[in-house]
Amino acid sequence: MRHVLYGRCVRCGRTYEAVPDLVNCACGGILDIVYDYDYIKTVLTKETLRGRRRTMWRYRELLPVEESTAPTPLRVGWSPLYEEPRLAERLGLKGLWVKDDGQNPTGALKDRASAMAVAKAREAGAEVIACSSTGNAASSLAGNAAAAGLKTYIFVPSRAPKGKVAQLMTFGATVISVQGSYEETFELSKAAIERWGWYNRNAAINPYLSEGKKTVALEILEQLDWQVPDYIAISVGDGCTIAGLWKGLKDLYAIGFIDRLPRLISAQAAGCCPINRAIEEGADWRPMEENTFADSIAVGVPRNPDKALQAIRESQGLVVNVSDQEIMDAQQLLGRTCGVFGEPAGVTGTAGVKKLCEQGLLGKEDTVVSVVTGNGLKDVANAIKACGEPIAIPGTMDALLAAFAARQVVVS
Amino acid sequence: MRHVLYGRCVRCGRTYEAVPDLVNCACGGILDIVYDYDYIKTVLTKETLRGRRRTMWRYRELLPVEESTAPTPLRVGWSPLYEEPRLAERLGLKGLWVKDDGQNPTGALKDRASAMAVAKAREAGAEVIACSSTGNAASSLAGNAAAAGLKTYIFVPSRAPKGKVAQLMTFGATVISVQGSYEETFELSKAAIERWGWYNRNAAINPYLSEGKKTVALEILEQLDWQVPDYIAISVGDGCTIAGLWKGLKDLYAIGFIDRLPRLISAQAAGCCPINRAIEEGADWRPMEENTFADSIAVGVPRNPDKALQAIRESQGLVVNVSDQEIMDAQQLLGRTCGVFGEPAGVTGTAGVKKLCEQGLLGKEDTVVSVVTGNGLKDVANAIKACGEPIAIPGTMDALLAAFAARQVVVS
Repeated sequence: MRHVLYGRCVRCGRTYEAVPDLVNCACGGILDIVYDYDYIKTVLTKETLRGRRRTMWRYRELLPVEESTAPTPLRVGWSPLYEEPRLAERLGLKGLWVKDDGQNPTGALKDRASAMAVAKAREAGAEVIACSSTGNAASSLAGNAAAAGLKTYIFVPSRAPKGKVAQLMTFGATVISVQGSYEETFELSKAAIERWGWYNRNAAINPYLSEGKKTVALEILEQLDWQVPDYIAISVGDGCTIAGLWKGLKDLYAIGFIDRLPRLISAQAAGCCPINRAIEEGADWRPMEENTFADSIAVGVPRNPDKALQAIRESQGLVVNVSDQEIMDAQQLLGRTCGVFGEPAGVTGTAGVKKLCEQGLLGKEDTVVSVVTGNGLKDVANAIKACGEPIAIPGTMDALLAAFAARQVVVS
Repeated sequence: MRHVLYGRCVRCGRTYEAVPDLVNCACGGILDIVYDYDYIKTVLTKETLRGRRRTMWRYRELLPVEESTAPTPLRVGWSPLYEEPRLAERLGLKGLWVKDDGQNPTGALKDRASAMAVAKAREAGAEVIACSSTGNAASSLAGNAAAAGLKTYIFVPSRAPKGKVAQLMTFGATVISVQGSYEETFELSKAAIERWGWYNRNAAINPYLSEGKKTVALEILEQLDWQVPDYIAISVGDGCTIAGLWKGLKDLYAIGFIDRLPRLISAQAAGCCPINRAIEEGADWRPMEENTFADSIAVGVPRNPDKALQAIRESQGLVVNVSDQEIMDAQQLLGRTCGVFGEPAGVTGTAGVKKLCEQGLLGKEDTVVSVVTGNGLKDVANAIKACGEPIAIPGTMDALLAAFAARQVVVS
């Protein structure tokens, strides 16, 4: 990898050769992949990009893969970026774009990290990848690995929703349901990974995964024709995704594709916001309970706080915590106004934008991109709670007219 | 529409001016949109297409919209076409491609028809679109209309699954749940559409909708660089989709983009196959019971049999009926081998291909494209039935080793 220098610990600064199975620093800190931007500038131009296939692999000069590594099979990335003038007007913003990353192959932004895991596993010569997760990390890994002909072992706690387990098993993963807590599940997966030498897909250990996630930032800017928005909003759980977003933005700035950096908006659930609380308090993060229905960001002990806090601080970002009701309202708002159906954690960024507008912290001078990180079809049960009941009537015109009148439906 | 001549009844041949709110012929037959291919040849070339945005609207010279009509907002079309050499080898085919149309915005091929309905409703000056459906037609209409700022009224029978109703309501549709049969629901919607003059999104009445669906064929051929496969397989319910597929292929042949036509494979559920039975018997179709769990194609009284039967016969197509178990097997096969998760009706085409291979009707001389018409996340309950149970154990290595041994899992 002529364009990659090394991995550097975000805590102690120690550097490591960028081998495919790189893990955390001896000190426990997570590594950051460091690039040779001077070299990259000589091989990557905006014009080079134009004719390339529309997947995350179009940015390969900025990705930590060997020049000879083939793109992974599923079409990950290049999700739509919708300009939303009606929603912008309603919220009182100068401009608003929605990046619908629920349109990835398995329905989540996590596909970007899992595709990277598959590419690096191939470079490592591994035929098996493993992780412990109940959510989008697991399903995206199972799908992307299946398409590449790799086996997966996935450890889930027994409380994992059946629907998510079904997705994993359809993709042919060997799913181990552990009768115990998530912590016990994680420990067993760790022991098994060590015992059998499986490739490790864990975004808080494998430093390449957030490099996959950063492609969402590269796309947003390319789709905006390199015009920089004032803010980019995203929901935050473990912290890996916002860290990846920021890394992508800094990459583009470093190679001169953009001339300024947007500010990040970190949106968390009010019932589980350890990262935002640390920013607000200007202090270290402390664990919190996980009191939110937005399961993908219900992370009381974030596993990538270092990079996330650094990203928010460096960008002079805003933090905003939203209630479950505000998340449900945002889900309805995005559905009704934009035709975008996101899962609860997926729309939390938009809920945060709405709240910041109501608080007067965002307004008619500001342009904002809001990233939707997961598809609403992932969690239909919670959508049902948010959307209310249909008009139930017998099949007659009289009944229909009476129901419209009773509900003050004005038919146009 | 300089490129559109008129609508022509498929039964009696009567022609109608192609106004935006065109419906069935006075004789009851559905209309087919007829184009001026000589003119289209002068304005559309393969080279023209290259630089265009990757949505269904890239083919606008072959679509029945005014030159001034704007593309609809959601990114419909240009779903991935995956080459699947491992699955081809396993089935004994020369070549196999999977077109994953579950990657459309609301998760189904039906988005193509609904986007067309939205475009034509705008041309008609309508602000409201209506339909009766419990399935993908309804959710795709609700989503595409919401993004375009149009209102929708959607009539569903009260037995409609809650998850699908949730999707509709999230998109802001006014949902009327009718306490009665689907027939009663349809009749009430018809009366309401007539009373209030709403735009009618019903693929068996509105002749433009299958013109939207045909874009799946245009894409497949462009993605294959205009190399014609021997067969294209798709599941069949009402008949509108396979009719649209055939129309797209004939369009490409008429303008000289391809030099031969593929044969169609019409796959239906064995418990509900009135169209395939008519082909097999060389007779008219007769109603059947709806004995299949693949709800999107459980259509005992198809509403577009004329065009569907004509398409299969003209293409010298194959018909194949598959059991629910064969559909579930195909869902697992696609998931495990390709990383593609389709709903039961969505994978029925692939189930048909597999069965035809086993019967020796397809083999190592043949190249096949199989269209997956809907996303598996639409129907998680049935995926659970198909995929079996995970390995459930306490969180210890001893338990894991014992479970692997008992299940003869060979860890590599």
